[in-house]
Amino acid sequence: MEVLDRIVATCILTLCIGSLHVIALKSQLFSRTARHSGGLPHSTRTPISYETFYFDQRIDHFGFLEDGTFKQRYLVSDRHWQTPGGPILFYTGNEGDIAWFCNNTGFMWEVAEELGAMLVFAEHRYYGESLPFGQDSYSDSKHLNYLTSEQALADFAVLIQTLKSSLPSAQLSPVIAVGGSYGGMLAAWFRMKYPNIVVGALAASAPIWQFPGMVPCGAFYRIVSQDFASSGFNCDVNIRKSWNAINNLSSTASGLAWLSSEFSLCSPLKQQADALSFKSWLQETWVNLAMVDYPYEANFLQPLPPWPIQVVCKSLAFDSAVSDQQLLRGVSMAAKVYYNYTGSSSCLNTSQTATGSLGLMGWFYQACTEMVMPMCTDGVQDMFEPEEWNFQAFSDECFSMFGVRPRADWAGTVYGGKDIASHSNIIFSNGGLDPWSAGGVTQNISDSLVSILIPDGAHHLDLRYSNEHDTPSVRNARQLELMYFKEWIRKAKKTPRTTSRG
Amino acid sequence: MEVLDRIVATCILTLCIGSLHVIALKSQLFSRTARHSGGLPHSTRTPISYETFYFDQRIDHFGFLEDGTFKQRYLVSDRHWQTPGGPILFYTGNEGDIAWFCNNTGFMWEVAEELGAMLVFAEHRYYGESLPFGQDSYSDSKHLNYLTSEQALADFAVLIQTLKSSLPSAQLSPVIAVGGSYGGMLAAWFRMKYPNIVVGALAASAPIWQFPGMVPCGAFYRIVSQDFASSGFNCDVNIRKSWNAINNLSSTASGLAWLSSEFSLCSPLKQQADALSFKSWLQETWVNLAMVDYPYEANFLQPLPPWPIQVVCKSLAFDSAVSDQQLLRGVSMAAKVYYNYTGSSSCLNTSQTATGSLGLMGWFYQACTEMVMPMCTDGVQDMFEPEEWNFQAFSDECFSMFGVRPRADWAGTVYGGKDIASHSNIIFSNGGLDPWSAGGVTQNISDSLVSILIPDGAHHLDLRYSNEHDTPSVRNARQLELMYFKEWIRKAKKTPRTTSRG
Repeated sequence: MEVLDRIVATCILTLCIGSLHVIALKSQLFSRTARHSGGLPHSTRTPISYETFYFDQRIDHFGFLEDGTFKQRYLVSDRHWQTPGGPILFYTGNEGDIAWFCNNTGFMWEVAEELGAMLVFAEHRYYGESLPFGQDSYSDSKHLNYLTSEQALADFAVLIQTLKSSLPSAQLSPVIAVGGSYGGMLAAWFRMKYPNIVVGALAASAPIWQFPGMVPCGAFYRIVSQDFASSGFNCDVNIRKSWNAINNLSSTASGLAWLSSEFSLCSPLKQQADALSFKSWLQETWVNLAMVDYPYEANFLQPLPPWPIQVVCKSLAFDSAVSDQQLLRGVSMAAKVYYNYTGSSSCLNTSQTATGSLGLMGWFYQACTEMVMPMCTDGVQDMFEPEEWNFQAFSDECFSMFGVRPRADWAGTVYGGKDIASHSNIIFSNGGLDPWSAGGVTQNISDSLVSILIPDGAHHLDLRYSNEHDTPSVRNARQLELMYFKEWIRKAKKTPRTTSRG
Repeated sequence: MEVLDRIVATCILTLCIGSLHVIALKSQLFSRTARHSGGLPHSTRTPISYETFYFDQRIDHFGFLEDGTFKQRYLVSDRHWQTPGGPILFYTGNEGDIAWFCNNTGFMWEVAEELGAMLVFAEHRYYGESLPFGQDSYSDSKHLNYLTSEQALADFAVLIQTLKSSLPSAQLSPVIAVGGSYGGMLAAWFRMKYPNIVVGALAASAPIWQFPGMVPCGAFYRIVSQDFASSGFNCDVNIRKSWNAINNLSSTASGLAWLSSEFSLCSPLKQQADALSFKSWLQETWVNLAMVDYPYEANFLQPLPPWPIQVVCKSLAFDSAVSDQQLLRGVSMAAKVYYNYTGSSSCLNTSQTATGSLGLMGWFYQACTEMVMPMCTDGVQDMFEPEEWNFQAFSDECFSMFGVRPRADWAGTVYGGKDIASHSNIIFSNGGLDPWSAGGVTQNISDSLVSILIPDGAHHLDLRYSNEHDTPSVRNARQLELMYFKEWIRKAKKTPRTTSRG
């Protein structure tokens, strides 16, 4: 865990230029795992019941020197599967424990019966239990070398081919890829790169264009800010002011003590420099709230009330005349909506979003190699302190952490960037409240590369269990998605595909 | 060259089960390089003139531990390029010296002016001058680890992206991939995997289905046999008989001496076991003739007369009554059509097709990893001695040579096998005389995945310079290909694609 210690040390104790956004990514896309694995749905929901399997997967699909295998975990539910030939919904696992994704993708469980579908949830290599080198998987960059999206897609392809050749009932089964967030990117890329394996893909909240040169680096944080601006009077304005208030207070020992007490910090701020990580932590808090601004009480990144940003903003509705301390008292109350909705936290841990798990380090490594997602803030169009995207600083930090450097253009080259019109059968769904929609496909590209917008939806709301408080937009989205699934399945059955062994 | 010595030793002195076909592949697809590099077209042809460049290419596109680069050679001709935005014809180099492919792909040179196109010929890594580790590239399987088709395609993609971003005139240039044989497979796969980079592909004589489970393993040699059957009276029948005649004669010392003398062998046959490699050499000779059965005098694999199989068969038109020696005298004369048409060879070298070059070993390694192409003979539907496809023996031999084992299903998984209908803009051209058409796409798959058949054509005849003796079928093929090129270019210009940096 030496590398991880270095990451945390680097990012908590310094400005963390560049990797600030990696921390943000980590907390947004990943840290759910640690908090939620094993969470089960309410009893009123479609029950989740699956078997767990392990597949001997190649460590390296793209070279032949390393011939070892590892156990890739996958979960299967065939309760509603109509054999032979019933479709397979295949979840392209992302950066975490697959059981957690399985439990948090209610949509698949809800449509399985109607489609007569088997559900398969495949774990992404290097996450959860699917560790290519066991406990050594994260020991150094040599062992991390097989953690790439291309290897993960190849895992999925080989797993499906093997399932199809070993299960007679599955040989003619059309397979549809489903994923959210990074898993949604994988679902889309899977259909692009392996259209022989999957007939279509639902890529929910998949920021496939959040790469260099494709979208403005500031768009992500602008959406976060808009969410707050539209959720309460002066909400974004006061958050924008809060940074300077923190700077002012953190310049004195008494101010640091006041902040630590007001925010009930588990580890009090000790010096002015601590304000940097404190501000990063708050910034991530607002981002996380934007991601999970769901219309009903939910427990995704944290247990939260319905429309949590509206609740948060109630504490931030000052006009311009308040003092720094008044303002920050409001910020503190707002943060506690996120961190202590249940009232069970005795103190707030500002290093929480940077504490380690295998998943954290995995996503960190991926961000430091292929998943280069530029982000920036200007403090004008968004409510954050200005920070430019600095690729060189980011690269240097990656090199010091892992001994590798990110390849800024690779994702665009290998996954097509904005030139994806020749592909087919991909649904890109995005929530208008979700900052990740900034990097998503939010317009139809063709008849079969379609965008579904959920204007009042947050991060892959459509993949969640249906809820009585769901707005019409997400209900419609799910209906449309189901319609496309049926259409793909219908067409596939008209021209059945064979396995390559055929 | 230790590994190479072992290969040769293994295959010349033993039965070479399994790898016999690898040797065949090598001689057919590769050995041209050694024989033809530097050959220049006749003065009446469109003149060839290019500049040579070297691009700093990543050694490993699919992992980040190996961050080194190597010099990838590429040749550029912009003489007819209409800037800005004129198209680029991009030759996806195969297993050999790119200058040789450049000189042997007259079609591209002949259409460049009409299309206003720039020509780029990119060398395949590990061949010619494009050696990732210089002279160590072939030293062991560790250094060979980056010799895969996926890496080669990524090379092409990155090279094109870089050319487009560094040449302002090229930014809106539609790029078309062109290749023949393995290079044709790469061209097709390039369009499948990187449709963002190339608007279409001409895959000439590309056996993309010559993989396990896709086509009958005997089809290749059946076509060879048909070529001989249709080129002269009893031609295939007598070749089929010749194997037993060789077996008979090689059972005695005097018979071996007679064979050695009759065939003017540089290295006389010394023992009965030598007959095995002698027969392999003859078998490859017939295969090579089938590949280069062109309607005009040509110098592709060897200097040959027009329709060389017809010439060969004149020596093999016996009825059933001849003795072994009479029969083999005819075979000897036939072989000399291939090996000594110019009369300059003082003796025939039966180890010729197994002698080494970097390219030979490279293709051997590729056949031993991804490019698993099952072949078999039955002696009934073909004119060869029966030999089953034995994957295990082949795999064992690969392991003993390189320490790697072939992955029989991988090419089908990663490149789609027979399920490629969702792709677009690929021309698969095949010659009816070409044994490689057995593994080719010889029927239209869709409006934009089209097959062009040249019934009286041999191996990628359409890519060669036009010739006054060309038959109408190949003239029509080239016209159709040009028509598709223009259509792709026209459509691309209507919806210009941007580079990912855009």
